[in-house]
Amino acid sequence: MYSQLLLPDLQILLQEDDADGLREFCEVFHPAATAEVLGSLSSAEVWRVLSHSPLPLQVEIFQFLELPLQVTLVEGVDRDRLTQLLEEMAPDDRVDLLERMDPELVERLLPLVAQAERSDIRRLLSFPEDSAGSIMTTEYASLPEDISVNEAIERLRQQAPDRETIYYVYVLDEERHLLGFVTLRELILARPDARLGDIMTRSVISVRVDDDQEVVANELARYDFIAIPVVDNQNRLVGIITHDDVLDVVQQEATEDAHRLGAVEPLEDSYLSTSLLTLTWKRGIWLVLLLGAALATASILRGFESTSQQFAWLILFLPLVLASGGNAGSQSATLVIRLLAVEQIDRSQNWEIISREFRLALLLGGGLAVLGFGSALLFEGVEPAAVVGVTVFLVVMLGTVTGAMLPLLFKSVGMDPALMSNPLIAAMVDVFGVVTYFSVALLMHFAFAG
Amino acid sequence: MYSQLLLPDLQILLQEDDADGLREFCEVFHPAATAEVLGSLSSAEVWRVLSHSPLPLQVEIFQFLELPLQVTLVEGVDRDRLTQLLEEMAPDDRVDLLERMDPELVERLLPLVAQAERSDIRRLLSFPEDSAGSIMTTEYASLPEDISVNEAIERLRQQAPDRETIYYVYVLDEERHLLGFVTLRELILARPDARLGDIMTRSVISVRVDDDQEVVANELARYDFIAIPVVDNQNRLVGIITHDDVLDVVQQEATEDAHRLGAVEPLEDSYLSTSLLTLTWKRGIWLVLLLGAALATASILRGFESTSQQFAWLILFLPLVLASGGNAGSQSATLVIRLLAVEQIDRSQNWEIISREFRLALLLGGGLAVLGFGSALLFEGVEPAAVVGVTVFLVVMLGTVTGAMLPLLFKSVGMDPALMSNPLIAAMVDVFGVVTYFSVALLMHFAFAG
Repeated sequence: MYSQLLLPDLQILLQEDDADGLREFCEVFHPAATAEVLGSLSSAEVWRVLSHSPLPLQVEIFQFLELPLQVTLVEGVDRDRLTQLLEEMAPDDRVDLLERMDPELVERLLPLVAQAERSDIRRLLSFPEDSAGSIMTTEYASLPEDISVNEAIERLRQQAPDRETIYYVYVLDEERHLLGFVTLRELILARPDARLGDIMTRSVISVRVDDDQEVVANELARYDFIAIPVVDNQNRLVGIITHDDVLDVVQQEATEDAHRLGAVEPLEDSYLSTSLLTLTWKRGIWLVLLLGAALATASILRGFESTSQQFAWLILFLPLVLASGGNAGSQSATLVIRLLAVEQIDRSQNWEIISREFRLALLLGGGLAVLGFGSALLFEGVEPAAVVGVTVFLVVMLGTVTGAMLPLLFKSVGMDPALMSNPLIAAMVDVFGVVTYFSVALLMHFAFAG
Repeated sequence: MYSQLLLPDLQILLQEDDADGLREFCEVFHPAATAEVLGSLSSAEVWRVLSHSPLPLQVEIFQFLELPLQVTLVEGVDRDRLTQLLEEMAPDDRVDLLERMDPELVERLLPLVAQAERSDIRRLLSFPEDSAGSIMTTEYASLPEDISVNEAIERLRQQAPDRETIYYVYVLDEERHLLGFVTLRELILARPDARLGDIMTRSVISVRVDDDQEVVANELARYDFIAIPVVDNQNRLVGIITHDDVLDVVQQEATEDAHRLGAVEPLEDSYLSTSLLTLTWKRGIWLVLLLGAALATASILRGFESTSQQFAWLILFLPLVLASGGNAGSQSATLVIRLLAVEQIDRSQNWEIISREFRLALLLGGGLAVLGFGSALLFEGVEPAAVVGVTVFLVVMLGTVTGAMLPLLFKSVGMDPALMSNPLIAAMVDVFGVVTYFSVALLMHFAFAG
């Protein structure tokens, strides 16, 4: 919304090459708002706008730009400027950028970056994608335990300018073991001469550096924290993850899950900044896989060719019985996958879920079977209606239980439950649904004939 | 995970009726962790545990309990205790609870609540569900502009105990108009004698009290704020919404969207605390609707009965052509619905999306058509293969464009884009897919015959 309103102004400032105007533009608006407007300019123009501001503000705005744009921008800029930029960037945002850049360029750049920043970069780059380590920042506020509240506030003043947050302060011993934490609110309220070690909270909730980012998000969401500390396997503080990064993780994971459920391989960037070719690929592989499953259904149908010629009405209700199973399966898979994404489910609850789904399947399958029977009766005779009713019941049972069990199974072997997309469930139910439909038709015919 | 470890300890404390032990239990752990353990106890036991702690801690723990449990708890407790609890609760959590309680009980309770709290409750209850007003809290920190930084910190100390956050402080004039804001970090870093009005940020990003909660979430996520101010139509501050509530909103909206996409009416509570009957209803209505759509397909198939008897191979590839269109449509709908959930899309971008999807449809439809042709050729002759190829191309085009356009259309008329669930898209594509398939078969037959 901002970009719509401000873009014309910015373009005039650029045309007139108004240095003061450009600097003011960057200073007046929130960096995120400025970044949004810059998104509509060319790389050269973005650099021209930024160049009129002091470096820290440049970097703040730069960090709010979308990643693909950041990558384009750094590719066209000279080494000195890029080195400065990297040194000034927040460690977590910097690593995100470096991970997306050409690895050769990164290797040529790193020697130019100051030593301290360089080893921080190497360490953060070494963490696996989507781990706590890969999204944490190393710019946290920390203090020793045996100082007074007054001194603590004084030291925080010095740390403040380059810390991601000073609202949560971590209390460490000399080996950086996490002893406790204290909030700035508590410091402000405490007696100035109280000892930090006496007012801090000792039972600190933390995550491990190799925890998955989804665990981090769930923990932070559960406790309503502004930041959560990240420790190594000896409980030494190695970083923190702040609420805004967790919000991004939650959005990103929800989008990934939604895409998977809809049979789209997750996109790295937003839909609008993903190329048509990438989109074709990320959708195409699933469509081809699902086409393969549909061919299996076709070959089973071929095995029943004589049956389908014998009972012409079978084709009428084929889409209906297959859709009933697929839809019930999609519902179960959706519910279970979303449940696994937002809650910690332990093994004992797996059985509770399957048992609930089984009972649901009985209710839903029973209800739909009656409706299916009734509606088929309007089209054809009692025998076809009975076949449709019984088949609908069976495929709904099958779909529901499969849809619920497969994500749980995937999770228990350490795979992403959302891999079990709705169309895949539907395709699997199709294969078995066809066999069920024709078998029921044949059996019923014998029963009615007998 | 906590609940597993701590529950046995707590049960022993309850058996031994150990007052000190129970108080310590509530004090030592984070209120969210304690709440998780309490989730496994009976109502009476929960109240027994809580009764040993001071009221503010009781309320903190209570607020972390899941809403259905909160409702059960308040139904079994005496009036005095309930009134105390309500007076002490955070305004936003309190309103969430009251909205879920029996309205008659609420009307009997309200006269017992202190006047100030009561009018706050009535006002918050009046905002429509899912609006900024319904999720905001009225316990924000605010200051006038013409005081010194030193005095500001002093006054914050007094406000701190009952404010949701003191890290963002809003600067108001006498009529509560929002003039600016200042962070506690800025206050700590500023010269003690600086005037608040001189150091505050004047261009404040805020939301309107009637904005949708999704707008609130997107704004807070964009700017990485800890809290966002909520103003009325005269720019007077009426509340704030904090990062943790936004995280809940984002999770909740993502779950709702996922459920809708999977053709499940969104659940109010988590899957495991929703009754089987409610689940049956929330899934059943969609299954019945989709059954209705499948009946439309059946009746169209009936119209083509002579064609399907003429070409026996048609039934083989019916699931394949219908699934291709449905799957492509699900992909498009998923991508567009998720895009609309996380980004602000303006009208000009609608055309960009549709044009992208159209080109994608050409690529995906073309590719799948070739594969469909090739595989049908392995089963049957050239004519069936050509029919399958052409139909797959057409239904993928249809599915993709429908899947992308319907959510955009829904949004533009103010409806929830996610109402256009994947199974519904698939069902709609089925109806047209059948017509296409049989028409193509008939036309091709004339072409091949001629």
